[in-house]
Amino acid sequence: MSGGVSAQQALSDREQRVLGIIETARGKRARFRDEQITMAHGAGGRATQTLIEALLEPALHNDALAALGDAGLVSAGAARLALSTDAYVVRPLRFPGGSIGELAVNGTVNDLAVSGARPLALSLSLILEEGLPAQQLRDEVQAIAAAAAAADVQVVTGDTKVVERGHADGMYICTSGIGLCDERAQLSPASLRPGDRVLLSGSVGEHGTAIMLARGEFDLDAEVVSDTGPLWPAVDALLEAVGADLRCMRDPTRGGVASVLNELARASSVAIVVREAAVPVLPAVAGAAELLGIDPMYVACEGRLVAFVAARAVPRALSALRGVAGCELACEIGEVRAQPPGMVLVETSFGRRVMDQLVGDPLPRIC
Amino acid sequence: MSGGVSAQQALSDREQRVLGIIETARGKRARFRDEQITMAHGAGGRATQTLIEALLEPALHNDALAALGDAGLVSAGAARLALSTDAYVVRPLRFPGGSIGELAVNGTVNDLAVSGARPLALSLSLILEEGLPAQQLRDEVQAIAAAAAAADVQVVTGDTKVVERGHADGMYICTSGIGLCDERAQLSPASLRPGDRVLLSGSVGEHGTAIMLARGEFDLDAEVVSDTGPLWPAVDALLEAVGADLRCMRDPTRGGVASVLNELARASSVAIVVREAAVPVLPAVAGAAELLGIDPMYVACEGRLVAFVAARAVPRALSALRGVAGCELACEIGEVRAQPPGMVLVETSFGRRVMDQLVGDPLPRIC
Repeated sequence: MSGGVSAQQALSDREQRVLGIIETARGKRARFRDEQITMAHGAGGRATQTLIEALLEPALHNDALAALGDAGLVSAGAARLALSTDAYVVRPLRFPGGSIGELAVNGTVNDLAVSGARPLALSLSLILEEGLPAQQLRDEVQAIAAAAAAADVQVVTGDTKVVERGHADGMYICTSGIGLCDERAQLSPASLRPGDRVLLSGSVGEHGTAIMLARGEFDLDAEVVSDTGPLWPAVDALLEAVGADLRCMRDPTRGGVASVLNELARASSVAIVVREAAVPVLPAVAGAAELLGIDPMYVACEGRLVAFVAARAVPRALSALRGVAGCELACEIGEVRAQPPGMVLVETSFGRRVMDQLVGDPLPRIC
Repeated sequence: MSGGVSAQQALSDREQRVLGIIETARGKRARFRDEQITMAHGAGGRATQTLIEALLEPALHNDALAALGDAGLVSAGAARLALSTDAYVVRPLRFPGGSIGELAVNGTVNDLAVSGARPLALSLSLILEEGLPAQQLRDEVQAIAAAAAAADVQVVTGDTKVVERGHADGMYICTSGIGLCDERAQLSPASLRPGDRVLLSGSVGEHGTAIMLARGEFDLDAEVVSDTGPLWPAVDALLEAVGADLRCMRDPTRGGVASVLNELARASSVAIVVREAAVPVLPAVAGAAELLGIDPMYVACEGRLVAFVAARAVPRALSALRGVAGCELACEIGEVRAQPPGMVLVETSFGRRVMDQLVGDPLPRIC
């Protein structure tokens, strides 16, 4: 990427028009106009964002929630805590590389980790469908136990409900987690500055692709294994290596890396420019994404980290990340620029395009 | 109730035989033998207990979970925290006196309160069914906001998932809560001693009865309003009035007062004797329970407190409770005795009987 020429200057007339349309649409205050809930409201893209910003957040308004991070911050005496929650409705329950139980631990642990909080404890709520084979429940409880042990966190409380046959898909799981905010972390989604770099801890899209392949919905000979795993070791290494030069982190789950970049570009009123060729994508993931007509940048990961760091910290950050198991492919994929604010651009071998928020739900129930 | 004569001495031959059978059954180590999940596993009675003690707890084993309280205890720096979680699958979503959203706040706040923890913050996970009218979601989010405000607690983080039409009943909600352990509280389910008294903060069974009536499943002309409400004010008043003379508290939700008493009689290896005539039951609740063939003592409350206190603390405790809105009917309903350990007995106008754990699920999906 050449320095010196700003993205704004280099935009063509056509790009300027596209950006103008997007900016106009975004400038309007979000309103929730839908009369019914659709699958898109759970997909992590624009519909989810509207549901959160126009319906949930105004009704429940408070500062912690308004920050809309992956976890809410809570003070308890002298301790600064993070609280995070996720419901898991992945289908099928088991897939190459993981299962709903494992995901329920890693997903919540990772929301704490990317918020700069060391996971302390988890809660576990099960919604079971009448008729669920007991062995499937045993398997998932074992998966939960193993994932919790691997993430060095304990499940300290739980609840079990049962609904009649046909009113759930085997089981839904909700985990919540408490984490202790790390003193080395000074993170904020509004802290991105022009010149900051975008790092990625590994290849993208394996989790979402593994789920779609496991459903047998398209005929592809590849086996793709979910990247699900705990992120605290990577976060811990990054914090130790670069401290306050770490601006913000996210785990690119629903909506993938593209959604995370859009969220943060808006929150910091900056542009983010990504070099497509720099993003590691496994051939099987690229192939499946092409069949599905979706950019791998929108496909969910469950064990990857997107981190924004000051330019001077890049060598230290990459070296630290690459020393963590599972992060050997960590790389720089782009940078933050001033213009156009709130936009994500991708540079490809064919030129440059806007990488907007996800609309619709091409990959339902992947977590 | 006459003092001096122990329950053991006063047992008839028939009672002794019944107790012998129950003790033999209970003496066996719980094993999870069912091949499939049934509605009873979610009912809060014996099947739920077996699921927890024989399947969940051994796999996830740790000290906090093994305590099997309504919340798990977690240390965060110098702070002692409680973490609690519940999934809500109540049907219908709205009922006289409350709704799933209100229940999702009060239920979790109350699990913290009875654990002696002042509620600090909540998380909210929604599992929405595709096609859910947006207005129903708005109504529940408003109910959540109102209940959170009434309980003086904030929803600081959340998650939303959507499942296809037919894979949920409108919505399921999971809330988790963090509370700060109150220094006045020295509570333990194993701390009940012969001579301690059993207090109840109000009339029993309104919540479960309101739900059953709202479903129109039996033809009764009564309107019963759920007792759902936050319990921290009652707990706070009790702690202030009696401090360490407060042994243990529970909110009698699924499985009602009977299940709470059985749980604690076992945990403390004591007997609990309840005077049926002392338990406040509204006529409409008593009538509905009779139609349903269920003792009101097994019907869920969502805003009542069962408290065990030292005998000397009863006047102070009752006076404190009665000063709290909603607890005007607070009363003593029984006492703790040494024999027979692990058993709950009810004294009625016809004599005395064992009040065992709930078997089966006469009232499905009431929370």
